[in-house]
Amino acid sequence: MIGVFGVIPGDDAPSEGAPMTSTFAPRGDHDAVETGTDFAPLFDANGLIVAIATDAGSGEVLMVAYMNAEALARTIETGQAWFWSRSRKKLWRKGEESGNTLTVTELRVDCDQDALLLKVRLAGDGVACHRGYRSCFYRSVPLGRVAGSGNELVFDRAMPHRPPATAGSAD
Amino acid sequence: MIGVFGVIPGDDAPSEGAPMTSTFAPRGDHDAVETGTDFAPLFDANGLIVAIATDAGSGEVLMVAYMNAEALARTIETGQAWFWSRSRKKLWRKGEESGNTLTVTELRVDCDQDALLLKVRLAGDGVACHRGYRSCFYRSVPLGRVAGSGNELVFDRAMPHRPPATAGSAD
Repeated sequence: MIGVFGVIPGDDAPSEGAPMTSTFAPRGDHDAVETGTDFAPLFDANGLIVAIATDAGSGEVLMVAYMNAEALARTIETGQAWFWSRSRKKLWRKGEESGNTLTVTELRVDCDQDALLLKVRLAGDGVACHRGYRSCFYRSVPLGRVAGSGNELVFDRAMPHRPPATAGSAD
Repeated sequence: MIGVFGVIPGDDAPSEGAPMTSTFAPRGDHDAVETGTDFAPLFDANGLIVAIATDAGSGEVLMVAYMNAEALARTIETGQAWFWSRSRKKLWRKGEESGNTLTVTELRVDCDQDALLLKVRLAGDGVACHRGYRSCFYRSVPLGRVAGSGNELVFDRAMPHRPPATAGSAD
């Protein structure tokens, strides 16, 4: 069962599935939020909270995405990772097209409750990134040099990767 | 040496240390950003990019913070983690007060270059969170129940934690 969510009056483009408020606990003061047991997630001005998905086995960071209140509620209630797609402006069950669903084994929240951490089991062919890589973090930035337009990214050649022909499939 | 940064004309409150533009590579098209070697980080409307710090040894997610272009440049150039403090509105070298500095062993960027991953070695007493816990993610949200105000967070009693008397020290 999915909880009931309201929409902020005057929101210029409220669409079904993009509620801006939630039925989660109201935010208390700083100490209460950081030391208490009330789950009072802080959504930003766009109604979103950042969510980091890590592999439940290896701990590897797989991807970063955003949830609105409804995506978070669905994730809690179903144990499957739901997000809000900022580019497509819609609720999105990760893997609904690719088969690379994320089963959440643990959901954590940080001290000030404005970031979520999902420990997940990745289904399908073990690829979390729509570019065909196991993790979205398949490139590194060299350190110890002057920062600027000359910084060249280095690909992680050891990361499991699906053949390029299907790497661009949408999800 | 720290690179040179501009400020968007008309920014209502440009302050030293909070530049909104950078000398990183310009953003190319979607494919170029995701498959190329140009480092072209995407800063949001506030000039920030999310950065996740994980323990270089264990892979544990320690904290989530934000960088502006200057914090990112300083991190690249010094190998120490710099962030932009949204609450204090200032550049912040993590650990400058607490001693819990983060030495960056690897910096990665995700597919669309709007999130950063830092693999770090944590100095001092091994505590990343200002609340005295090793990680900011010291509480979990129970799954498989109706989402809402009744969700009670569960503390990770096994997480290393500094005595409460000093847990609130600022950083």
